[in-house]
Amino acid sequence: MTLSESDLIARFFRNCGAQRRDVTLGVGDDAALLECTPGAQLVATTDTLVAGVHFPPAVPAAAIGHRALAVNLSDLAAMGARPAWALLALTLPEAEEQWLTEFAAGFGRLARAHEVALVGGDTTRGPLTVTVQLLGHVPPGRALTRSGGRPGDLLYVSGSPGDAGAGLAIEQGRLAAPAAVAPYLRERFLLPTPRVALGERLRGYARACIDVSDGLLGDAAKLASASGVGLEISFADLPVSRELVQALGGDAARELALTAGDDYELLFAVDPARVAGLERELPASQWNYHQIGVLRAAPGAVVTRGGTVMEFSHSGYQHFA
Amino acid sequence: MTLSESDLIARFFRNCGAQRRDVTLGVGDDAALLECTPGAQLVATTDTLVAGVHFPPAVPAAAIGHRALAVNLSDLAAMGARPAWALLALTLPEAEEQWLTEFAAGFGRLARAHEVALVGGDTTRGPLTVTVQLLGHVPPGRALTRSGGRPGDLLYVSGSPGDAGAGLAIEQGRLAAPAAVAPYLRERFLLPTPRVALGERLRGYARACIDVSDGLLGDAAKLASASGVGLEISFADLPVSRELVQALGGDAARELALTAGDDYELLFAVDPARVAGLERELPASQWNYHQIGVLRAAPGAVVTRGGTVMEFSHSGYQHFA
Repeated sequence: MTLSESDLIARFFRNCGAQRRDVTLGVGDDAALLECTPGAQLVATTDTLVAGVHFPPAVPAAAIGHRALAVNLSDLAAMGARPAWALLALTLPEAEEQWLTEFAAGFGRLARAHEVALVGGDTTRGPLTVTVQLLGHVPPGRALTRSGGRPGDLLYVSGSPGDAGAGLAIEQGRLAAPAAVAPYLRERFLLPTPRVALGERLRGYARACIDVSDGLLGDAAKLASASGVGLEISFADLPVSRELVQALGGDAARELALTAGDDYELLFAVDPARVAGLERELPASQWNYHQIGVLRAAPGAVVTRGGTVMEFSHSGYQHFA
Repeated sequence: MTLSESDLIARFFRNCGAQRRDVTLGVGDDAALLECTPGAQLVATTDTLVAGVHFPPAVPAAAIGHRALAVNLSDLAAMGARPAWALLALTLPEAEEQWLTEFAAGFGRLARAHEVALVGGDTTRGPLTVTVQLLGHVPPGRALTRSGGRPGDLLYVSGSPGDAGAGLAIEQGRLAAPAAVAPYLRERFLLPTPRVALGERLRGYARACIDVSDGLLGDAAKLASASGVGLEISFADLPVSRELVQALGGDAARELALTAGDDYELLFAVDPARVAGLERELPASQWNYHQIGVLRAAPGAVVTRGGTVMEFSHSGYQHFA
């Protein structure tokens, strides 16, 4: 099948995301025309997924579409922002109809769930690479950043990190997990859940926030470094799923939670004076987050277990290391 | 050399573009925080360049950086918008210091020339692919679109299309041009000049506008189709450079002007009632544009020469045809 670029865009992407009244001109011209929310700050991010690097090439197209948007939604969640508009740059070896239908379905489903309009993009031929640019809004001065943490802040993480790393290992045939838990772990890799609602609600509670994409320990170190502090994580307090423990055992599960990527959870630091308010407004049981450590004045990111410091050789995914 | 992603970003991209007061938080956090111009519409576009598809892999890194931004600036020019902020998604096989230095220099030079701040991005490992997202502003309701053309409008193009196509052919070893003109033509491919100032000035004069990226005839057909009209281009009126004629002869030069891509010129339609004002405010000799045809009621895009219709088998670059 051959499809011209404009046919392809019209068929698969013109009505792919949410319909929004602040989109004056969407897909199909040289650029999109958008109406900023008056008084709000604009928040902008972009993330790329490369086949064979960020996902195995055989991953279902719907999952690739979902993930490409999810990783960007996660960046906006980490800023406490509300997403609004996406642009999609899709490079693919050939315009394969079935693949495109599924990709657009996966992307569109998540976009509509978060009221994100797909307002533009570019389709090119080449090795499978998906870049999404996501725009959103945040009330002025209220954005969460990586740099606001202070010594003594309590450090929390949402969800159950490590699941996605195990899911990727299963997907790649590196891990044979019990049949009872493998589907759950695979789905945690294929269809990550960006914590957009939590990010928005954390405004006013979190002093610093980052999304966990390259490994919890490495990303925690980035937050600490940006805040000019250090941090200590308690190994025993790392929240791991029942499924991950069943697949790996408790210790290996917590090691994976520290070092594997692709979680797209939120890691955030809270002033002890705000903890009571946080727990009242956003009960941990309902919003699914756990305290895992504290920020401290001494630089460096350490993990402790029973009073001793653990050594980790791998502290997060480095694209060029 | 190995470089972590954050080292790479800090070293090559943190201060790469213009400094702008409307950037509250730029490169280095999960997303950028930007201050929209009150009362303006936001304009957003994205374009990807893939090595081996959009440029030969051996093209100098500075030219790749320049082109990646230029093609997006050209999209904003076609909307009559003023660019403000860019995000850069750079996928590359390895973090090679010299290459990155030159790439950032080429990107940064053009960004500063147009007062564009580089506010975020993503670096990933994979086949060389560069995606830029560009954001800008336009006064409300004043954007140029593809769809405003009416029968009887005069059709103009800026610059001298075809040069870049010849430059690419030289770059690929498919064309041996005289030494006196080859450097000019190569530079027209390697370092295209987006017509940003012209685009902004065309607001109020052009009824429809598109940038010429995939071939003049094909892009003209897109403008006509979006406007619900047809068009007629006069072969003899196609503006071609002295250098292109010297390389190819007059007829082949005009054929290339119609069909080659990579020009990044503006093609625009003007109500005959506005032509006198256009020529007074934006003298063609100074702003370098030429009338090449007219829009007409009958659908289709035709090229005429001495009263007869010419046949063209190739009407612009189709990424997936």
